Amino acid sequence: MAKNYTKIINSLPSSVPFVGPETQERLLDKQFDSRIGANESVFGPSPKALKVMKDEASSLWMYGDPENFDLKIEIAKKHNIKSENIVVGEGIDGLLGYLVRMLVEPNDNVVTTDGSYPTFNYHVNGYAGILKKIPFKEDFEDLASLSSFSKKLRPKIVYVSNPNNPMGTFNNKSEIQAFINEVPDDTIICLDEAYADFVPDDDLIDINVNQENLIRMRTFSKAYGLAGARIGYGIGHKNLINNFDKIRNHFGMNRVSQFAAIASLKDHNHLKDVISRVKNSLKKLEEIAIKNDCKFVKSSTNFLAIDCGYDGLFAKKVLDNLISNGIFVRMPFTSPENRCIRVSAGTDEDINFFEERFPKALKEAKIFFNY
Amino acid sequence: MAKNYTKIINSLPSSVPFVGPETQERLLDKQFDSRIGANESVFGPSPKALKVMKDEASSLWMYGDPENFDLKIEIAKKHNIKSENIVVGEGIDGLLGYLVRMLVEPNDNVVTTDGSYPTFNYHVNGYAGILKKIPFKEDFEDLASLSSFSKKLRPKIVYVSNPNNPMGTFNNKSEIQAFINEVPDDTIICLDEAYADFVPDDDLIDINVNQENLIRMRTFSKAYGLAGARIGYGIGHKNLINNFDKIRNHFGMNRVSQFAAIASLKDHNHLKDVISRVKNSLKKLEEIAIKNDCKFVKSSTNFLAIDCGYDGLFAKKVLDNLISNGIFVRMPFTSPENRCIRVSAGTDEDINFFEERFPKALKEAKIFFNY
Repeated sequence: MAKNYTKIINSLPSSVPFVGPETQERLLDKQFDSRIGANESVFGPSPKALKVMKDEASSLWMYGDPENFDLKIEIAKKHNIKSENIVVGEGIDGLLGYLVRMLVEPNDNVVTTDGSYPTFNYHVNGYAGILKKIPFKEDFEDLASLSSFSKKLRPKIVYVSNPNNPMGTFNNKSEIQAFINEVPDDTIICLDEAYADFVPDDDLIDINVNQENLIRMRTFSKAYGLAGARIGYGIGHKNLINNFDKIRNHFGMNRVSQFAAIASLKDHNHLKDVISRVKNSLKKLEEIAIKNDCKFVKSSTNFLAIDCGYDGLFAKKVLDNLISNGIFVRMPFTSPENRCIRVSAGTDEDINFFEERFPKALKEAKIFFNY
Repeated sequence: MAKNYTKIINSLPSSVPFVGPETQERLLDKQFDSRIGANESVFGPSPKALKVMKDEASSLWMYGDPENFDLKIEIAKKHNIKSENIVVGEGIDGLLGYLVRMLVEPNDNVVTTDGSYPTFNYHVNGYAGILKKIPFKEDFEDLASLSSFSKKLRPKIVYVSNPNNPMGTFNNKSEIQAFINEVPDDTIICLDEAYADFVPDDDLIDINVNQENLIRMRTFSKAYGLAGARIGYGIGHKNLINNFDKIRNHFGMNRVSQFAAIASLKDHNHLKDVISRVKNSLKKLEEIAIKNDCKFVKSSTNFLAIDCGYDGLFAKKVLDNLISNGIFVRMPFTSPENRCIRVSAGTDEDINFFEERFPKALKEAKIFFNY
């Protein structure tokens, strides 16, 4: 018997678009040798964060501070802003859900890039918004089209990731600033900067918390190596930030994660070290691509989109071969971006596994398609 | 300039009804000597969970399994049900938010007890539902009125906590079963059993996952001593459980918390030990109440409502005196329940502090009111 669920719930698909590597491991009945598919940081969290997590484990009987007071102070220092301009949440995923809820009513327009972050789309669908998806333009987010459609459709939100996922490309700061200036005031610009820690600060736009229609999303899941801790934050005008407090799960944050994030922010050396190791790892991945006669997309993130040379079906076959051979990687959803597989920076061991198995995966795909 | 927020967001208050003890500590500029106000478990998590948290800290660079696969298997064992009947989320708080979102559209009716869990009300307000609040009846949730109003109003949800918070009373299983039978099929019964681990299993209703309009909420925040880990779960019919997957934050769970919860479920001795320590601690609190000429409400939880003998203003004064004197406690919001303060089970040290300072807090309140 059907219960009185909302119209939206009844209309949503029951299928889940997100498959975790653990699900694949259960299906394959073995563990991956290399987990380089979710853009996690194999280089792990700061040793200072690790120490805090161990020291504070026994304090986990207490709820975390619902205000995230101390964490916001450290984040404020990093960006030279005030705590009132920061909202902390259960990863950027959680914050995107709140943002969409704050703005999107059924049939409201939302603009994004086709093939960019699916969790944003998941939330928009979850509130019955209408997604207008702009194709990538030569592997870059097409800011000109995103802004012109924003002017035309007056969407509640326009979503831009920079550097973007899954291609890893970066729109420079003058392009981003021009885009921000073009978007109508009544559209909220959600600038997802999950990978911004891999870009030199000088290459990012200045932080302007006076702009009421801009929110910038950051995370501890990538460069800080704390994906499993679930800590993201948004930076914006205090009026926008305030609205999160009306609806967020105030006691949603893990107490030890709060401490770990604070410790991470204080460990500049670890962050620098991770960024340097990521660069080295991507360089090796680039070399592996070249050695296998593959192109790659220059990346400003901790992952590399490797062009397998044919279409999406071919790349999917390469991906499946890698997965069944112990290498967890992912790939873009849209054409022509899905000519690529997306490989995260890895340890030397991860990269060695990939170097060894990628040629075989390519070769078997070519045999399969008779190329 | 006002942005295009939803009508609901614009209508919600910007004030936050939840004050954490950390906020009070910042205001008082000192730490509490006893933190016995949020019904956390001062006895902490299982040593096995502690070990896992330390061992797995370095794995926190990985996202948690979005399916909570292994955790659901352990939960399923505990209740002798299937994984398909379980949803895991960011505390009961998070799950209540999802449940309300699944069911409540603007102006839909929802029935609850006046003065029971405010976070449930927060979510109902957050989706513009209309709350019908039934008063407590002699410190018990009034199941007869809750069911008769459910028949009359056909609400989307009727919320019952058992044992309830903030009074700690328990409606026995025949009463609860009769209530469930009375509620119309098209109303979802949300049975919040956060404190059920303190009640003998035989005193709880059987688990019936065939009943499509019932969800039972459980948590690791109370008896399991993992409040800061943010892990709750719901038990229900698979159709109901399925709907959570349409909207929940799939990657919302802390990876180490997942492991800690699994380890906790396997440590039956720790759970038994905590329950026994809680009983002893409540016994001492009862004795302290009696020694101070106060009544108390017999509790089936890990906290005790101590009747300060006068009205809400008086109890609030006692509470303020305790707080400014280093003891964190809370109190009910509604009259006449607010004649009480609510004191959580504590360590011997916590209880000694309370024993020492409660008489002074009472005395000063009497002087203040000239009683």
